[in-house]
Formats: sequence, structure tokens, C-alpha cells
Amino acid sequence: MALPKDYTSEACSLARALEVVGERWTLLIVRDAFFGVRRFGDFAEHLGVPRAVLTSRLAALVEAGVLAVVPGAHGRDEYVLTGKGLGLWPAVRSLLAWGDDHYSAAGPRRVFRHAADGGDVAPDGVCPVCGAAPSVADLVVVPGPGLAVPGRPDPVSTALTAPHRLLEPIKG
Amino acid sequence: MALPKDYTSEACSLARALEVVGERWTLLIVRDAFFGVRRFGDFAEHLGVPRAVLTSRLAALVEAGVLAVVPGAHGRDEYVLTGKGLGLWPAVRSLLAWGDDHYSAAGPRRVFRHAADGGDVAPDGVCPVCGAAPSVADLVVVPGPGLAVPGRPDPVSTALTAPHRLLEPIKG
Repeated sequence: MALPKDYTSEACSLARALEVVGERWTLLIVRDAFFGVRRFGDFAEHLGVPRAVLTSRLAALVEAGVLAVVPGAHGRDEYVLTGKGLGLWPAVRSLLAWGDDHYSAAGPRRVFRHAADGGDVAPDGVCPVCGAAPSVADLVVVPGPGLAVPGRPDPVSTALTAPHRLLEPIKG
Repeated sequence: MALPKDYTSEACSLARALEVVGERWTLLIVRDAFFGVRRFGDFAEHLGVPRAVLTSRLAALVEAGVLAVVPGAHGRDEYVLTGKGLGLWPAVRSLLAWGDDHYSAAGPRRVFRHAADGGDVAPDGVCPVCGAAPSVADLVVVPGPGLAVPGRPDPVSTALTAPHRLLEPIKG
């Protein structure tokens, strides 16, 4: 059931936000961008999303100003989060934490660590060591006790089995 | 494009969360439940969602343990958030704030006020007056500068033009 794209009868900023990121693939693409995925092929392989769908979702995110296209190392386009896209981190982090709370009996699948002092940053964004709320670029994603090793690891999943600083490009 | 329901290849708690709340209507239903909407007819009229879709989404939320069915005043079923459902507030709040930031030029459409001291609670959940993070039940939703009065107001929209404590039933 598709939502009408033009949602003017909904005087709500949640509805507006969901017009842009309300597709499930879309938030997974945004999550991957936070993890440092930049290349079309890496998104496709990590997400297992059909390439036509990925093309459409990436174009919509660029049009909405959530992602920007930048030239990559080998002349291929890469996708990076804009300032507007970075603003989605609290929403991504909150949904991740809720998923961990209710669908990961062995504990969080991933832990977000403050690079400066090693504090494990709570879902509300506050570092227990320094009491500050580190910016996204100061967080390191670390495998948590609930992370299962995928049966058929793709390069992105493999890279994320080791600590990885958010936004730093993943070498696929 | 539907996501496969069984998403076992995605070892990610965000993917799990989106299996449950990844439909756009679903998060709007959850938002309404935070605002105190409890009755089928009120959800239907406020959201403008087809009744068959609403029936299906409510059933899925009950099955997932996000909503519970309770007997209402006139023998009709009502839907209320469970503890698990209440845990979605940070995600709903974050997406609302992001929508306000980017799609509401006149400012936030709704403000969330700490009932105890009148502080306008920031998107990160912290009250600037007392420094604490009030629980959902201690928040009052107040029209913000960006709220447009709907052309054809339904009872829920009308109720929310005045301050309204979250979770308190809206009298449709």
C-alpha cells in the first residue's frame, strides 16, 4: 500500500520525514552510509537489494539532499551523507537500539564507542566517560555480543567485524 | 518494492526494527498512539488511511507487542502502547525533529513540554529547565509555530490544537 507522495493533509513533521526516508531500504542505505559505505556495488552487495531498486533509492536520497554524489578514487561516483543526512543519526541510532532491545537476545549487535575516550555511547548519544554527546565522526562502531557472523560475508560485513570509525570509507 | 519479511541475512537490529515499524503508516499509527489516539475510528479519520490497511497495521502492531488491545468505554476495543511500544518514542521524536528541521520553515510544528516545569524538551529528550529526561507520560504536546490548521479538521487534529498530555486518551 503506497502512501500518497504528496502528503499535504498531514500537518506533521514525522509524515514529512517519512516521505523522504520511509521506505525500509532507504533507512538501511542511510545506515550503511553512516558505516562508511560509499560505492554502488558495496551498497548492493551488503544490502542484497536489487540494483534497480538501489538506483531509484539513491537517486531519491540525492534529490532530497540526504546524500551527495562525489567523485570516487577510480572515477566512479560515490555517495556521502550531507549535513542534512547526518541529522538522521539520532533516528537511525534509536531504531537500532530498539531492535537490539527486543530482537537480539544476546545483547547489542553493534556498540558505538567514543573514539576519544573509549566510552560506550548510550542510545541517547551521551558518552558515560566524558558526559558529552560525541558527533557522529567521533564514534567507532564495534561488534557487540549479539552480532552473528553472516554465513556468506560480503566485503562490508567483513570490514564491520573489526572496529570501524563512522563515515570513514569502507575499503570493499 | 516489498522487503522480504524474513530478513535473516541482515544481521542488523535496524533491519529487525524496520520489519516491525518500517511501513510509513505504521510509525504514523504509533505516533498517534503517543498522542493519545486509542480508537479505530479516530486513527482512521486522523490518518486518512483506508480502513482495511489500518486493520492490517493495527493487527501487526498487536502481534508484535507494540500495541495492546484493551476494553474501551463503550465496549469497543481500544489500542494502547505497551512498554515495548513506548520504547519507540526516541525514534519517533528524532524523525519528527528532523522533519521540523528540514520541512517546516516556520519552526517546529509541535513542541514537547515537560509538564513538571514547563521546559521545552529538546529532541535529545533533555529538559532545559531541570536537566532531566522526562518520561513520555510527563510530556505535553503543544502546537508550535509551524503548525498549520488543517482545512478539514478531524476530532484528533482539533484536540491537538490545545496542549495535550502524551498518552492521555483523546476524546474524539
